[in-house]
Amino acid sequence: MKLATVRIDGTRCTIHVDGIDDPAGTGDSPQAGSVTGRIVDRRDLGALLTANPTGIRGAVESGLRRDGDEVTVPLTDLLPVITSPSKIFCVGLNYREHIEEMGHPIPDHPTLFVKYPSALTSPYAEVTVPAGMTDKADYEGELAVIIGSRLAGARGGASEEEARAAIGGYAVFNDFSQRDWQYRTQQWLQGKNLDRSSAFGPWMTLADDYDPVAEGASLRTWVNGELRQDHSTADLVFPPVDLVRYISNFATLEPGDVIVTGTPEGVGAGSGRFLADGDVVRIEVDGLGAVESTVRM
Amino acid sequence: MKLATVRIDGTRCTIHVDGIDDPAGTGDSPQAGSVTGRIVDRRDLGALLTANPTGIRGAVESGLRRDGDEVTVPLTDLLPVITSPSKIFCVGLNYREHIEEMGHPIPDHPTLFVKYPSALTSPYAEVTVPAGMTDKADYEGELAVIIGSRLAGARGGASEEEARAAIGGYAVFNDFSQRDWQYRTQQWLQGKNLDRSSAFGPWMTLADDYDPVAEGASLRTWVNGELRQDHSTADLVFPPVDLVRYISNFATLEPGDVIVTGTPEGVGAGSGRFLADGDVVRIEVDGLGAVESTVRM
Repeated sequence: MKLATVRIDGTRCTIHVDGIDDPAGTGDSPQAGSVTGRIVDRRDLGALLTANPTGIRGAVESGLRRDGDEVTVPLTDLLPVITSPSKIFCVGLNYREHIEEMGHPIPDHPTLFVKYPSALTSPYAEVTVPAGMTDKADYEGELAVIIGSRLAGARGGASEEEARAAIGGYAVFNDFSQRDWQYRTQQWLQGKNLDRSSAFGPWMTLADDYDPVAEGASLRTWVNGELRQDHSTADLVFPPVDLVRYISNFATLEPGDVIVTGTPEGVGAGSGRFLADGDVVRIEVDGLGAVESTVRM
Repeated sequence: MKLATVRIDGTRCTIHVDGIDDPAGTGDSPQAGSVTGRIVDRRDLGALLTANPTGIRGAVESGLRRDGDEVTVPLTDLLPVITSPSKIFCVGLNYREHIEEMGHPIPDHPTLFVKYPSALTSPYAEVTVPAGMTDKADYEGELAVIIGSRLAGARGGASEEEARAAIGGYAVFNDFSQRDWQYRTQQWLQGKNLDRSSAFGPWMTLADDYDPVAEGASLRTWVNGELRQDHSTADLVFPPVDLVRYISNFATLEPGDVIVTGTPEGVGAGSGRFLADGDVVRIEVDGLGAVESTVRM
């Protein structure tokens, strides 16, 4: 089951996704593509998860019976799949092969930093970088974990079973970065939080249906059609369940909270090839769909 | 004008604060003290700011005419003055004398890191540290800035005048920290975000009425009655207006967003004296009131 947040007649709605027409990879494609589905609820997916903390599947089925209007919306009307998470945790240094290649030891603990909700953008939006702000704009293709049910924290950490049960689903994420701002100080926050920069979607695939890490799903990033990242999510040092357990040592996770699991090798900071005006960044994870950002700067 | 968020009959309300009875500094005091005021609105202050983005003063005056019921509530019914900010920015290394004393150069840019709303707690609450989690629990007394009106970001930075106009008011903050978790990785997040650990309040003092930095207000922290921090907020390297301008280079600030401006010398990490079960941490800023946390661990 795939659930998306879309704008319909000016209102944020949750739809059950039935199909997509995505003429991939060219800069003009978002205008051409569309998603077909049925309306589940006249609220966004974050609100729906919050209102149904014990399980989204039943809420979706009753929502479809109650409404269920068929819709076809342009890809550009997809919104960030969760528009206002109370917390977004990002993870650094989490792909084993990339860490070893760079000569770093495998870390004992995940490195966590923040993405504020204001930095999220729609899965097929243009991303505007203010004039003169940076010449080191960069992408990071990532697997995102969406919390489905509340997991109380600050009590020594959840069990594996509890952590797995708290994961509602998965999506694709572009951890958009400005490397000069990221490294101005010791803390990365200011290079990771440009307004409306990080594509998140295109929808949530329910964890009950599909586990991308267990399936060894590949993550791939293209810039203007050139493959830049191609790596199995099975290589994660801290896979989703471990990240949920770790965070639950100190913080409560709420429905709609997001953990973005880190990026493999192949970012612009590695090659020195940063993003320029008109570049199209497309990130895909097997089984989860794609996000595609056109950069304006 | 001082505005607090309090729990009245199970509902979050905004009150106009008229007086406080705070038998300061002893562990038993929160149970004894109280705040008197008049009800402005049956919503919390964050909601009120969001609903009145062009200015809170008129909304308060009409709210007092509409309701205005007099109330006396125990200090323990004060809530975090903003309960769910969309963004809380914390600042590191921001007091000049302390930076120089430590032999660091004065930084060119503020160091920014995150506090999630889940880490906030009431100004007179107990703070529970999970058993066995840390032996390096610590306080940081800080001046907090509360945004009053929306300031669009990602456009090269706001002017001084725009930044000043966006500041709604000021409050007191305890940037509660676990130093071992803070330094496990390069990023401080996980040592700064224990559930319900950081006292925030006791109320917002309107910026139109009082500018603590311009007045050279002192910030003081006591642990069990012993003075540990005592410093003028005029020593800030990046004062509130500069922080707002800096952040507006990349992020939009919303009403109720918070910037916590950093701590002066005198934290436990400096002296090696960390917090223990039963410790009472009291932080006061001249003109803004105090927050007081009793630690349970």
